[in-house]
Formats: sequence, structure tokens, C-alpha cells
Amino acid sequence: MEKKSKSRRQFFKTGLAAAAFINLGTLAKATEKKGMKKNMFIHHVYFWLKNPDSKEDFQKLIKGLEALSKVSTIQTFHIGKPATTNRDVIDRSYSVSWMLIFENGVDQESYQKDPTHLKFVADCSMLWSKVIVYDSVDV
Amino acid sequence: MEKKSKSRRQFFKTGLAAAAFINLGTLAKATEKKGMKKNMFIHHVYFWLKNPDSKEDFQKLIKGLEALSKVSTIQTFHIGKPATTNRDVIDRSYSVSWMLIFENGVDQESYQKDPTHLKFVADCSMLWSKVIVYDSVDV
Repeated sequence: MEKKSKSRRQFFKTGLAAAAFINLGTLAKATEKKGMKKNMFIHHVYFWLKNPDSKEDFQKLIKGLEALSKVSTIQTFHIGKPATTNRDVIDRSYSVSWMLIFENGVDQESYQKDPTHLKFVADCSMLWSKVIVYDSVDV
Repeated sequence: MEKKSKSRRQFFKTGLAAAAFINLGTLAKATEKKGMKKNMFIHHVYFWLKNPDSKEDFQKLIKGLEALSKVSTIQTFHIGKPATTNRDVIDRSYSVSWMLIFENGVDQESYQKDPTHLKFVADCSMLWSKVIVYDSVDV
């Protein structure tokens, strides 16, 4: 029993040291959490549906984007719709927002040519009447 | 010596257990790394400078955005410029991209009224001729 208990104490002691170590790492990360990782490539696409009131077309596009999100070079994605905010400068006329973050421009180029992307365009491009893409890199 | 050595072995043994635990956590995270945290609020702003060729005005706007990035409710920000990509659907006429991620819409509303934001508008709004905002939430 004593041995087990000692071992447990040792575990908790080492565990605390490990926890302190992890926490320092987290804190270091927290101080820089606001800025994104350097040199990422942001690819933000806005789609306007041909039939903006069709829930079916909207769902088809969402399903297509969910399948598209599997492309391996995509680091982060977000499938969005307009928020309820409404001011003069806000464009809330689009149907779907598709925001992708890549490690770099090369990965974004590779995504453009990926068979999954080509299939998405073939399957879904008849759904939209307009698309605007904004590609951004670090200033 | 033996005691120290045993203690070290114990440390490494526990350390390995801890490492395995952390690794499981990382793996769990990796499987869902592509999708963003649920229910975030994405506020993406594109600025067109009045004098798009003025490096001084560009730098003034960047400095203003860097100061603005200190607003506490901002979870992540990115200050960008157009990438070199150039296709029909890409709008690369803007000068600066300002992408913010908030925990929710309430935090975004609070950012709009934050004194730091009001100061940014007062200090920098004379620099741009056009601004478009896209606010997106989960579908």
C-alpha cells in the first residue's frame, strides 16, 4: 500500500510539474492568440444563389461545401450565412460565405486543381448567379 | 544514486503517460481541426483607399488597425492585402483586408461601440473611399 501511495504521490507531483509546463505554454500562446499564424493565405468566397429563397438550393450548396472541406490542404474552413447585423456598409445580400485558410499560396493553388474542387464546381456551379472571391495575404 | 535514478525512471514513465495523454488530446483536436469552433462570428472588412498608390496612407491604415486589434473582445484578427492570385471571380481592387473573429454577435456589437474602435474611425476614415463589410455566422 505504501509503495502504491508513494507512486501515486509521485504521479501527482510529476503531474503537477507537467501541468505547470503545459500552462506556461498555453499562456505564451494566449499572449499572441489574437494575431493569426504568420504568412497564412485567406481565401474568402461569397456566393449569391440564383434562387435565394430556395431552401433546397441552399442545402445543396452547403452539402457541396461540406464535401469540399475534405481537401487536405485546407487548414481551417467556415461555412457561413449573413449575420443579422444591418448597417449601410454591410453587404448582406449574399447567400453563403465560404472562408478557407491555407498554409500558403501554393496550397491554395493545389486546392483549385484538386479533383474534389473540380467536382464541387461541376456539381454546384449551376446553383449560383454570382460569386466574389477575396484572396488575402499578410501585409 | 539508485533513488535518484528510480525517481528519474518514475519521471520518464509518468512523463510518457502524460505525453500519451496529451497526444490523444491533440489527435482528437486534429480530426476536427478543419472546422472552426462553433458559433463564432466572422466580421470581414475590405477597405479601398482614396489614394491607393500612397504608401503613407496604406501604412497609416495598417497602424490604425494594429491599434484597433487590441480591443479585448477580438478573438483572432488578420490584416491582409490582396494576394497575387488573379482570376475573373477574384476582386483584388481593395487595398486592405481586416478579418476579425468574435465569440459571438454580442462581442461584435461591443467592439463597434468600443472607444478604441471609435478612435480608429475618427483617425482613419478619411483614408478610405469605400468599405464593404461581410458579417457571417454558422449556417
